[in-house]
Amino acid sequence: MPDVPFQRVAIVGLGLMGGSVAKALRATGYAGRIRAVMVNAAAVASLQESAQTWQIELSSVLPDVLADADLILLATPPRVMLAQLEDIARWADATALVSDIASTKNAITGRATALLGSRFVGGHPVVGSEMTGFQAARADLYRGARVVLTPMPDQTDVQAVEKLRQFWMALGAEVREMSPEAHDEALAATSHAPHLLAFMYLAGLEERLPGLEDLAGGGLRDFSRIVDSNPALWAEILLENQQAVRQQLQKVQHNLQLVEQLLAAEDAAGLQSWLSLGKTVRQQFHFPPVSA
Amino acid sequence: MPDVPFQRVAIVGLGLMGGSVAKALRATGYAGRIRAVMVNAAAVASLQESAQTWQIELSSVLPDVLADADLILLATPPRVMLAQLEDIARWADATALVSDIASTKNAITGRATALLGSRFVGGHPVVGSEMTGFQAARADLYRGARVVLTPMPDQTDVQAVEKLRQFWMALGAEVREMSPEAHDEALAATSHAPHLLAFMYLAGLEERLPGLEDLAGGGLRDFSRIVDSNPALWAEILLENQQAVRQQLQKVQHNLQLVEQLLAAEDAAGLQSWLSLGKTVRQQFHFPPVSA
Repeated sequence: MPDVPFQRVAIVGLGLMGGSVAKALRATGYAGRIRAVMVNAAAVASLQESAQTWQIELSSVLPDVLADADLILLATPPRVMLAQLEDIARWADATALVSDIASTKNAITGRATALLGSRFVGGHPVVGSEMTGFQAARADLYRGARVVLTPMPDQTDVQAVEKLRQFWMALGAEVREMSPEAHDEALAATSHAPHLLAFMYLAGLEERLPGLEDLAGGGLRDFSRIVDSNPALWAEILLENQQAVRQQLQKVQHNLQLVEQLLAAEDAAGLQSWLSLGKTVRQQFHFPPVSA
Repeated sequence: MPDVPFQRVAIVGLGLMGGSVAKALRATGYAGRIRAVMVNAAAVASLQESAQTWQIELSSVLPDVLADADLILLATPPRVMLAQLEDIARWADATALVSDIASTKNAITGRATALLGSRFVGGHPVVGSEMTGFQAARADLYRGARVVLTPMPDQTDVQAVEKLRQFWMALGAEVREMSPEAHDEALAATSHAPHLLAFMYLAGLEERLPGLEDLAGGGLRDFSRIVDSNPALWAEILLENQQAVRQQLQKVQHNLQLVEQLLAAEDAAGLQSWLSLGKTVRQQFHFPPVSA
């Protein structure tokens, strides 16, 4: 794996994603500086000891953390991130490369490029967990994961993109490039709409409780694991990408009607070929490994 | 745990579910006889050695397997099971208790009670796997699982129900009773509709391939694990229970429209409370443990 091409990394938001970057850096033997900022002073106090174990300088003062960093990685929830961009642009070193890990890329890439210019490179590691926080962060979260970089054509610095590619490869990830728009459309299908469907499905069972709690097996358990995610974070992601998500939901509505007709007509062959298609499609996906 | 209240168990269909019963019996130290039948002689030949390891007498001749058994457990796919009932009634010992493991209970319980009378007790272990076959069968599949028994009011023998309850408890399961109708309605919500939704969702991604295969994380992986199940088996289950499944799908359609409206209106608070409700509902379920 390549070396980490930065000496002074600043992580804004030391939660599951940002924390896993810091831990992964240390796990590769990275000897450079890692600073991290959390706006909540109480969170800083409670994580201080644990951060020190990982040689992370944790602070609640943004300018201190950004000072002379050569990589600034934004890892706060989407709306917080958008709101922080002006401060980032104000305090970032003029030569610092700035990137992020947000699940939606249209809004953040446009706004950050407007403020920071060619040195902002949007990024999204297509991996995660229903868990949150630095304690749940894992040094191996990005190993074998795909990271999508979303440079703006004719705007983002090509060398910055290459350095960021090298950075993620150093953490064990595979990197690909897409436009922010193509990314958001794809992720609506592979992540955002399934999250919404699972949340919505479980919410719809409310009126059947109590009564059903003991009658679910591993199927519903796994189908709805993502429902244990943070609702506030997911409301932000879904609204950021609401156009693509709605298109996907409309396709779901359409296909639901088709499937209902097959059921009503008791069309066994038609139903089975639809189910088989689902299975065939699933087998073409390269999912990240189930971690221990 | 109670002792197994049978001396000669006959299992019809030695797949994942029936095979797990046999392995679980042996794992508890059960010293009684276990015979199993598979109609496919080639399957019998290929599993013979493995069955002997578990002290299972495997055969393709139904009357031989049923002869003087005191428990006959039906564990074939739903349509096969329905088609086998007349032969079961013909060859079963007059004192044998007969039960099954099918995921839908209305049709089988009614038909089997008509043929076998008060000694048929419908059953459904609410547990499973996307895997199939005796090799995937697990001695601990039923440990901590819920098994629903579906006696017919005023028809099923109360003592037979008690013996079957003791049987499943001996394998580590918790047992509850419901009417066949209530069972099927509940399982449409906790299992059948989620399976159909996941299959349908993956089938709907076909037109986006190639392109999305590398862009899915653990969310879609777990949401769609059940899509790796057997399409022929699931077509049967869904059609058996098509009325309750369709009612559930209509509720999904209704809720999808509500959620779409929240997205279109960019109603962050409304969306978040919907997602939070899903999370709260999920936390009330008692799912079986994730096995190693």
